[in-house]
Amino acid sequence: MDMILTINTDRPYDVIVENGALGRIGESVKPLFKAGSRAMIVSDTNVFPIYGETVTAQLKAVGFEVFSHVFPAGEAQKTLASVAQIYASLAKANFTRSDFVVTLGGGVAGDMGGFAAATFLRGIEFVQVPTSLLAQVDASVGGKTAVDLPDGKNLVGAFHQPRLVVADPKTLDTLPDDFFVDGMGEVIKHGCILDPVLFDALERGTALDRLEVMIARNVACKKMMVEEDTRDKGRRMILNFGHTFGHAIEKMTDFTLSHGRAVSIGMVLAAEVGEGLRVTPAGLADRIREVIADYGLPTKCPFDFADIVEATALDKKSFGKTLNLILLEDIGKAVIHPADRSYLVLRHKLAAEKSRRSAEENHG
Amino acid sequence: MDMILTINTDRPYDVIVENGALGRIGESVKPLFKAGSRAMIVSDTNVFPIYGETVTAQLKAVGFEVFSHVFPAGEAQKTLASVAQIYASLAKANFTRSDFVVTLGGGVAGDMGGFAAATFLRGIEFVQVPTSLLAQVDASVGGKTAVDLPDGKNLVGAFHQPRLVVADPKTLDTLPDDFFVDGMGEVIKHGCILDPVLFDALERGTALDRLEVMIARNVACKKMMVEEDTRDKGRRMILNFGHTFGHAIEKMTDFTLSHGRAVSIGMVLAAEVGEGLRVTPAGLADRIREVIADYGLPTKCPFDFADIVEATALDKKSFGKTLNLILLEDIGKAVIHPADRSYLVLRHKLAAEKSRRSAEENHG
Repeated sequence: MDMILTINTDRPYDVIVENGALGRIGESVKPLFKAGSRAMIVSDTNVFPIYGETVTAQLKAVGFEVFSHVFPAGEAQKTLASVAQIYASLAKANFTRSDFVVTLGGGVAGDMGGFAAATFLRGIEFVQVPTSLLAQVDASVGGKTAVDLPDGKNLVGAFHQPRLVVADPKTLDTLPDDFFVDGMGEVIKHGCILDPVLFDALERGTALDRLEVMIARNVACKKMMVEEDTRDKGRRMILNFGHTFGHAIEKMTDFTLSHGRAVSIGMVLAAEVGEGLRVTPAGLADRIREVIADYGLPTKCPFDFADIVEATALDKKSFGKTLNLILLEDIGKAVIHPADRSYLVLRHKLAAEKSRRSAEENHG
Repeated sequence: MDMILTINTDRPYDVIVENGALGRIGESVKPLFKAGSRAMIVSDTNVFPIYGETVTAQLKAVGFEVFSHVFPAGEAQKTLASVAQIYASLAKANFTRSDFVVTLGGGVAGDMGGFAAATFLRGIEFVQVPTSLLAQVDASVGGKTAVDLPDGKNLVGAFHQPRLVVADPKTLDTLPDDFFVDGMGEVIKHGCILDPVLFDALERGTALDRLEVMIARNVACKKMMVEEDTRDKGRRMILNFGHTFGHAIEKMTDFTLSHGRAVSIGMVLAAEVGEGLRVTPAGLADRIREVIADYGLPTKCPFDFADIVEATALDKKSFGKTLNLILLEDIGKAVIHPADRSYLVLRHKLAAEKSRRSAEENHG
């Protein structure tokens, strides 16, 4: 499998997925900007101490002037106030439209540094260097940048495609296990909605044997979606598989449950609902549940289904009486299925009742 | 002349230029959004008390739910902190991607409300209702939104085209004279670079006889430019006529000189430089100087030319040794003329010397 994937948005860009790519980043970035251009590395206090020096040296070696903006690690930093500090660093270093930002880190660095790049001088270029599994398989493709508001996550942002993405699977060696597991949620999702070969490898337990191949397959999944639907208005919605319920669950736990874990539970729910609506073939929910559990993610929902459905009404993507469910017709085949909220709750009750009765009969 | 101009960007939108258009805005906006959508009027403490009630009633009458966010009037408000307050109003009113913003006011309301719309939920729609001359003839077309940073003006922003622009020349009746005069700077600029008929009307003193026609001609000028070059990377640069020097002068006065006034002086300088470089026909600088003076704008530069040229180096659009001058080959015919900064200063000195000598000879 090719390890450089070209994303064909308005202006195409490459995603490099290669072990050791970080140690060669200078050569990868060199042809994209004029010699002497300025680069601002936007990174956090966890990641910069590990990789900052390498990236700085690499970029300097090919003739760029390198600056850095390091912010305290953590999702709590993804705010407008932090973005204002990035702007200040860019202005202080006299950045112009021919200079660029390098986001080095997980989702927060990419989302927030990308948003700063999208809006400083009405948009300067950026190179994305994702160092977490979640960022490599998900956030690095699609051009979605964002920050949180006190009122909710990712409420402010812009679509801004990077000039290049450099995903080095070796950086995952320094990623805490907990974050690695969390990233597997999106990997399983991609298998479910788009990639039967990936799902098969997940089921067989061979997916992690060659991490760079697994990541590249995930990038290929997102590439397909983004190329079809850059502005996230149609087909790309299938990427929300497990997310409609997942977001609701995240909120209900006040974000104490991580994204990957909430989405995992959401995928199980979506598969169950799909089976109930006879969209998803019987047995698929069990297979998905098993894969999720195999990779250390939760499958059981701590909340009442009716409450979750009610909570989805607060999601910016699923307002109104109708919920646009993403359901599976098969592994690798997702459909958008509009469903009335109250009908959904009613069906779920009847299904639970039926399954309880059938369990009683089997035991009786 | 047609009073509805369609701007053919990626997604075309109309600019309505009509006396009394504000009193019919409900019908104009109605077909653009679903019934029941929410509208957030973003306006300032000068403009909202005059027109807020009309716009609110108009939008309610056609079935929208109307909210308002009123901020203290003044350029000092065009900050990230003010934008954060707009976001908070939008979030509090549960705005979704099918709702929209209405910017009602001058440049600050349009730039800042437009930026909030460009970035809230990664972009919601907005309707622009410019109520100052400058906003009607300039800011209302082009999709440039922005806020200021402590480090400089308009350093943060986005390209975001409005869904509709409603420019009612009647609103200029309540505009203080000083602001009206200031807006004439851009009108004269459009005449100079693109519209000989407009320039002729300005010279004859008939331009203000039918204000709606004058405004529509200006919108037509910007329409041409924006359609050619949506992202402001090529031909659209000619709109910077008078602005390269103008921005420098604005900064040198610490923004105590208004934009239109600084640009007026900048246009005179650009015409003089053009004559010196034999790009601009002799005598054109005098005609431009006269028109500018006729409309109450300044023509004399309080600074040394060499200092201004040096100050242009701080402009985000004109870094480096080369200055991209916009010069006139004739009224209505502007060209981009790259010039070396030091050569420019030298030429200016020689020309001043020559003109001094020739004046002495004439008197002698």
